[in-house]
Amino acid sequence: MQASAARSSSMLVTKRRCSSARRNPQQVRPRCVAEVTVRSEVKSKSKPSFDFNQYMKERATLIDAALDKSVPLQYPEVINESMRYSLLAGGKRVRPALCLAACELVGGTIEQAMPTACSLEMIHTMSLIHDDLPSMDNDDFRRGKPTNHKVYGEEIAILAGDALLSLSFEYIARETRDVAPERVLQVIVEVGKAVGSEGLVGGQVVDIKSEGAGVTVGLDTLQYIHEHKTAALLEAAVVSGALLGGAGEVDVDRLRKYSRSIGLAFQVVDDILDITATTEELGKTAGKDLAVAKTTYPSLVGLERSREIADELIEGAKSMLTTYDPAKAAPLYALAEYIRARKN
Amino acid sequence: MQASAARSSSMLVTKRRCSSARRNPQQVRPRCVAEVTVRSEVKSKSKPSFDFNQYMKERATLIDAALDKSVPLQYPEVINESMRYSLLAGGKRVRPALCLAACELVGGTIEQAMPTACSLEMIHTMSLIHDDLPSMDNDDFRRGKPTNHKVYGEEIAILAGDALLSLSFEYIARETRDVAPERVLQVIVEVGKAVGSEGLVGGQVVDIKSEGAGVTVGLDTLQYIHEHKTAALLEAAVVSGALLGGAGEVDVDRLRKYSRSIGLAFQVVDDILDITATTEELGKTAGKDLAVAKTTYPSLVGLERSREIADELIEGAKSMLTTYDPAKAAPLYALAEYIRARKN
Repeated sequence: MQASAARSSSMLVTKRRCSSARRNPQQVRPRCVAEVTVRSEVKSKSKPSFDFNQYMKERATLIDAALDKSVPLQYPEVINESMRYSLLAGGKRVRPALCLAACELVGGTIEQAMPTACSLEMIHTMSLIHDDLPSMDNDDFRRGKPTNHKVYGEEIAILAGDALLSLSFEYIARETRDVAPERVLQVIVEVGKAVGSEGLVGGQVVDIKSEGAGVTVGLDTLQYIHEHKTAALLEAAVVSGALLGGAGEVDVDRLRKYSRSIGLAFQVVDDILDITATTEELGKTAGKDLAVAKTTYPSLVGLERSREIADELIEGAKSMLTTYDPAKAAPLYALAEYIRARKN
Repeated sequence: MQASAARSSSMLVTKRRCSSARRNPQQVRPRCVAEVTVRSEVKSKSKPSFDFNQYMKERATLIDAALDKSVPLQYPEVINESMRYSLLAGGKRVRPALCLAACELVGGTIEQAMPTACSLEMIHTMSLIHDDLPSMDNDDFRRGKPTNHKVYGEEIAILAGDALLSLSFEYIARETRDVAPERVLQVIVEVGKAVGSEGLVGGQVVDIKSEGAGVTVGLDTLQYIHEHKTAALLEAAVVSGALLGGAGEVDVDRLRKYSRSIGLAFQVVDDILDITATTEELGKTAGKDLAVAKTTYPSLVGLERSREIADELIEGAKSMLTTYDPAKAAPLYALAEYIRARKN
C-alpha cells in the first residue's frame, strides 16, 4: 500500500476492503489517509486545451457549496454536525462531477443535476462512515481526519449514515427542478439499485465473504466485487446525469457502457498499482505485504494481461464518446485518461 | 415493563430506548419479545359491526405477501436472507395498514399504496435492526427471535439495514402504478423527512442524548422524542396513503392532524401503562424498576393529567374523520380506539 496507489485510491476513495487493517484493526492505513494530488499530466489527448485539474477544482467548489446547503445545522445539532463532518471533509467529488458532466453532455444544465450530484456524495459518505465502524473495517482515520465514530461515537455514526442515506433520496425528490417527474423517479430507481443488495451493499457483502483463510476467489467473483463496490455508483452518477439532462435511450445506453468501463478499469488499474508498488516497496512499509494475499487481477491473469484489460476498457469507454461535441465530452474523456495515466 | 405494556408496545413496536437494557446489555427485554394479542374489545364504537382484529389479520396477510416479493432471494443470498429474516419476522404491520387505509379512505386502491406500504415496513425494520446493534441497544432478541446481528453478524446487520433503507425509496419509485409521478415524488419526500435527522433519526439522537446521569428532560424534549421516534413514521404512513389515493390539500391536512394525534397519544398511553404496571409489579420483575427513572408524561404532569392528554389526543384524532364515509373511516377510527383502550 504505497504512495501512488494511495493517491489513486483516494481519488475515487475506492471501497475495497483492506485485509491488513482488518487483521490489525489498530493500524492506520495510509491509503485512507493520503491526500489526493491530481497530476498535471492527466489531460485529455483529444482536447489538449482542456485543463482537467482546473476543471475538477472548479467543480469541487460548486459541489461543496451545494453540499454545505444540503444539511443545515439545525436541532438536534449533533446529528447534523456529524453528517456535515464527513460530508464536507473534502475529496475530489468525482461522482458528483461525473453526474454534472453527463448532464451537460446531453444538453442539460448544472442546476438540473446538482441535487442528484449531492445525493451521490451523501451515499458515498454514508458508505465510508459505515465501512469505517469498529464492526466493519475499524478505521480510525479517513482523509487525514479521525473517522466519524471516533469523533461522535458509534451510535451517532450509524445514525448519521442512516440519515445521509435517507436524505439522499429525499433530496433528489425534493430539490430537482426543471426535470419531468417521471425522469426524477427513474433517477431514484437508478441510484437505489446502485446502493442496495444489487449494488454497493451487494459488493461489500461478497467482499466480506471472500476474506479469510481457505476462501478461493475467482475472476467472476472479483469482477462482481469491483462492479458493485466501485463501478455501480459511478454508473449511477453518469446515467442519472444523462437522464436529468434529457438523454434518450441511445445516449443512456452509450453512457452506461462508458461508466461501466471506467468503473471496472479503475479497479483493474488499482490492482496493478497495488502489486507493482508492493513489490517496489516490499520490506519498507511493515505489515503491508499482507495485502498481497488478496486476490487481484494481476494475481489471477498476470500483470501484462491486466494492463491489456485496463487498456481495452479505457479504449472502450472513450469509443462511447465519439459522437458527442468534443468540448462537452472533454471532462469524460479526461476522466478516462486519468485512469489510464495512473498506470504510470 | 409488564405484560400489558409489552403487548401494547409491540403492537407498534415502539422505539423508545430501554434504559435498563442499556445499563445491563445482556438482559433480555420481555417488551421486545412479547407476542402481540389484539384484544377483542378493541372495536370502533361508531361502527360496532367492524371487526378490527379480523381486518388487521387480513391486511397483515396481504402485506406479508407483498413484502415477501419485495426482497427476492438472489445472489448474494446472505444479505437478502438477512433482510428477509427481519422484514418477514411478523408483526401487526400497523404502518402499512395505516397507509392502505388512508389511501382507500380518500378513494384510492390497495394496489396504489402497496409499494409505499412495503417501504414503510422496510424502514421500520431497518430502524429495529440498527437499534438492536451492540453499539446501540445491544438487544439479543426481537419478537422472540435472535436479533439480526446475532444471526448474521454485525457487518451484515448494518448492511442489511442500509440495503432495506435504500430499497424502501427505490421501491416506491419503481413499483408504484397508476399514480401521477409528481405525487410519487411527494410521497418520497414525506417518507424521507420521517426517517432522517428531522424524523426518526432526530428522535433517536435526542433520546440518546437525554439518557444518563444528570440529564434533565422537560416536556418539550419528551414530546420531541415521541413525535420523531414514533409519530413521524405513522404520520408519513397516513399522509403518503392519502397522497397516493389522490387526496387534496384539505384531506391531507386533516389526515396529518389525525396521524400526529394518534402517534403522540400512543406514546402518552405507553408512558401511563409503563408507570401503572411498574407500580403493580414492583419487586416481581427484578431490575425493571430502573425504567421508572426515565422521564415520562406521568412523571412530568402526573397520571391524571396524562390520561386527560391521551383522551384529548384521541378525541382530536377522531374529530378529523367525521366528514368521511364511516365504513371507509372505520379502520382509522378503530386504531384510535385501540390506543384509547390500551388505558385499561
